[in-house]
Amino acid sequence: MGLKLYGIPVSTNTTRALVCLHEKGVDFELVPVNLFGGENRQPSFLAKNPFGLIPVLEDGDFTIFESRAITSYVAEKFKETGPDLIRHQNPKEAALVKVWIEVESQNFQPAISPIVYQSLVAPLLGNTPDQAVIDTNLEKLGKVLDVYESKLSSTKYLAGDFFSLADLHNFPYIFYFMKTPWASLVNDRPHVKAWWEDISSRSAFKKVAEGMTFGEKK
Amino acid sequence: MGLKLYGIPVSTNTTRALVCLHEKGVDFELVPVNLFGGENRQPSFLAKNPFGLIPVLEDGDFTIFESRAITSYVAEKFKETGPDLIRHQNPKEAALVKVWIEVESQNFQPAISPIVYQSLVAPLLGNTPDQAVIDTNLEKLGKVLDVYESKLSSTKYLAGDFFSLADLHNFPYIFYFMKTPWASLVNDRPHVKAWWEDISSRSAFKKVAEGMTFGEKK
Repeated sequence: MGLKLYGIPVSTNTTRALVCLHEKGVDFELVPVNLFGGENRQPSFLAKNPFGLIPVLEDGDFTIFESRAITSYVAEKFKETGPDLIRHQNPKEAALVKVWIEVESQNFQPAISPIVYQSLVAPLLGNTPDQAVIDTNLEKLGKVLDVYESKLSSTKYLAGDFFSLADLHNFPYIFYFMKTPWASLVNDRPHVKAWWEDISSRSAFKKVAEGMTFGEKK
Repeated sequence: MGLKLYGIPVSTNTTRALVCLHEKGVDFELVPVNLFGGENRQPSFLAKNPFGLIPVLEDGDFTIFESRAITSYVAEKFKETGPDLIRHQNPKEAALVKVWIEVESQNFQPAISPIVYQSLVAPLLGNTPDQAVIDTNLEKLGKVLDVYESKLSSTKYLAGDFFSLADLHNFPYIFYFMKTPWASLVNDRPHVKAWWEDISSRSAFKKVAEGMTFGEKK
């Protein structure tokens, strides 16, 4: 039996898990969750994730949530299939993957997500983007990207000369960020730009990106 | 040769790593970093962690940073010593540990850290605590603790009936939170209260807590 991923294709957290499943070539089904109808607040969904958040992964009768725990589970379970996203045969490389996973989680996402929200989501809700929030976070994001630039000038990917979850986890927010007026923060840093062009051209990413049409006229 | 942890005993992120090292009974040296003197912005420290943040772990010539990556590395390297904090022999339990590690990282810490900052740090800096920030985050934290309460009514610890990193990572912020006027959020939830009393009475926690005198008159 294949895996089931509950989520929606425009959600950053869902796409983080989706890209991983595609990288591994795993047989899975994407089960849509009607967030606007409050399906995620129903008891049947809260039994899967008590926080009522997407995505959720079901593997038979085993259920987990939190996108980064899902990617880690998938990468571990299918470690012999496709690219080794966790470097399971090399403890030091595996540790470096975890370091840069935490950098994305603790430093990168907290800076980039408010910019994406204010630039792309707020207008959809009829609100004016809060420029002060954007400016504060552009400054924070610039500092994180300076570190990325420096790291990517010495290794091809964030954790070393190998593609890993540490790179993959960055995909959803950069994808949307490149549609904001601030894409130059990526494009002006040559190593970050080359890395982004590299990872976003992977077939798993391109497949998932097709569904990320949130906020756009087709 | 023993490990070296760069950090300070009052820092939440340092103590997260310290507790893990003590749980494992690992031989290590705590190397103080003079944050007020800007030692963390010096090139020699930035070579260890380009973000200039503590803690940093050195294991011989191998260096990593980010507290949760450090605990994971220590728990993996010393998996045969002391309590198994990552459930390395059971892939499903290991996955649940990762789920609840992410819950702490993504849901718990973002709510509790501003409350601790406003209640304990702001006054030290001569600032009045921002009650609006406290109130917003007390509401968020209450919802997270409701989920903890429900989970801990069915299993003894967050990821199951075993102590793991998922519990350990919560220690630093709850320890300080219990010194704020809002400790009833923990004490009014019987399973959360019992869990906190259990984990905070572990010898590794008590050892680390001795150094967490930040903001207090001795």
